[in-house]
Amino acid sequence: MAAQPFAGVLVPVLTPFTRAGDPDAGRFIAFCRWLLEEGADGLAIFGTTSEANSMSAGERMELLDKLIAAGIPPAKLMPGAGACSLTEAAALARHAVAHGVGGVLMLPPFYYKGMDDDGLFAFFAAVIERVASPALRIFLYHIPPQTVLGLSLDLVGRLIRAYPETVVGLKDSSGDWNNTAALLERYPGFAVFPGSEVFLLDGLRKGAAGCITATGNVNVPGIRKVYERWQTPEADALQAQITLIRKTIQAYPMVPALKRIVAHFHRDPDWAAVRPPMVPLTQAQSQALLSDLAKIGFTLGESRRAAAE
Amino acid sequence: MAAQPFAGVLVPVLTPFTRAGDPDAGRFIAFCRWLLEEGADGLAIFGTTSEANSMSAGERMELLDKLIAAGIPPAKLMPGAGACSLTEAAALARHAVAHGVGGVLMLPPFYYKGMDDDGLFAFFAAVIERVASPALRIFLYHIPPQTVLGLSLDLVGRLIRAYPETVVGLKDSSGDWNNTAALLERYPGFAVFPGSEVFLLDGLRKGAAGCITATGNVNVPGIRKVYERWQTPEADALQAQITLIRKTIQAYPMVPALKRIVAHFHRDPDWAAVRPPMVPLTQAQSQALLSDLAKIGFTLGESRRAAAE
Repeated sequence: MAAQPFAGVLVPVLTPFTRAGDPDAGRFIAFCRWLLEEGADGLAIFGTTSEANSMSAGERMELLDKLIAAGIPPAKLMPGAGACSLTEAAALARHAVAHGVGGVLMLPPFYYKGMDDDGLFAFFAAVIERVASPALRIFLYHIPPQTVLGLSLDLVGRLIRAYPETVVGLKDSSGDWNNTAALLERYPGFAVFPGSEVFLLDGLRKGAAGCITATGNVNVPGIRKVYERWQTPEADALQAQITLIRKTIQAYPMVPALKRIVAHFHRDPDWAAVRPPMVPLTQAQSQALLSDLAKIGFTLGESRRAAAE
Repeated sequence: MAAQPFAGVLVPVLTPFTRAGDPDAGRFIAFCRWLLEEGADGLAIFGTTSEANSMSAGERMELLDKLIAAGIPPAKLMPGAGACSLTEAAALARHAVAHGVGGVLMLPPFYYKGMDDDGLFAFFAAVIERVASPALRIFLYHIPPQTVLGLSLDLVGRLIRAYPETVVGLKDSSGDWNNTAALLERYPGFAVFPGSEVFLLDGLRKGAAGCITATGNVNVPGIRKVYERWQTPEADALQAQITLIRKTIQAYPMVPALKRIVAHFHRDPDWAAVRPPMVPLTQAQSQALLSDLAKIGFTLGESRRAAAE
């Protein structure tokens, strides 16, 4: 299996939109810089939390161009390059590889349901063959709650065997620990990232590479502490703390909630905007969320100071 | 409610692919011409049966350009313009409207699940506002088996009230007759097309505009007979015949099966190609399908002659 360039805490970066409803490159660049300063090990831009599928392929490529032009190191980036069509997935992946990104995150063709493994294998194979680059590193994106089209353990194994230099990892957003554990057991050396920090400590103990988690947008320092100290006696207590923060936030619709938190702590109300079909939190939800977070002692600034202790 | 230009039997046209796996414009144009000669009232190109979501936006627009350049009347076309992002949906719709198409078929943003009506309303509203053309006619595409994101009766009503000149119809591929019947009862004058000819006669009796059906790719004459003679005493027998053909075909994976039938009767084996993640029928499936069809007396040529009787 090929070396893969990611480990630790990766953030599926929120995408800010302007008041006119277009991707806001300026805010996006600033936010990516801030996440790296906070200690993020990588930026999985254009994931589900990024509302990537609410953007056209052209919008995504333009944002990536601007991010690279602004000096964000491409090796730290794992852009989502998934699409229902193999041609669009290949175009997104080719564009990202040309920028020298560390890897790409790739969804299955999610319009389809009940596809068998032969068809899904052929889809990924066709994308890989069209990109035709030894620099391509694919992280499979298993997220059945959104796709209703999963990647079976057998399919993952077939792809690893057929493309050992290319198919190097997987983000498991199934929310099913048994699936994550089975991947870790079956495919040692394959970089498995649970899609939530709730499974970070359990994952690390079984060989996970880290995690790629929505909540990273607001809590890199807390999550990184678990990653750094997972072999110390305090690991379980640190994990309990980040799990509590996660569960507090995910009591609300995740993306609007995270954007509301960013808007609040970065003192930038326009950050709360989402693109349809998502809707922002109501005023009442926003107040309840911030109040819930205050009760557990969470603030962005404090989490950062705490990490430095 | 605005006049809408479609009635009768519309075909979600199969998309042929070359041996290299690219859309085959020549075969596509010839097949569209043949369907119109067979009596199709409209061509709903780029639907689910067309593997539209297996093509990039650019591939779809190029095929439409070539189809129009070849002289297919744009008023007969209802291209699918759905996409998960409002920007891509708007770009596809704008391009189609500029060609003078009769209307466009529009999916909800199907990556998302459990979205509430406010968010879905905002999505369609944003697309309509971005296209900003009085010539835009949208047919909503309700197909929960693929999208796992339906369009509620209330949402349809909200869209009709807000955009009476634009939101003029709906393709109901829920497979749920109760939903089709409820749409017809609640929104008289709104053009409802069941997504299967199985519901054609029942639909016409309640005011449906016709049907948009996959099987139209191989049985326009039979289905049109029901449309033409639905008020005659032979209507039920004609319906039973087309239902039998439909059920025989849908015992197999629908798109590969239809392509296999076209390949066989048009004597063009390359027509059987599908794009991943779909897989073609196996040799055994192909033989069983053709044998099942022979048993019920179905052939493309005969169906055409029978229609002329």
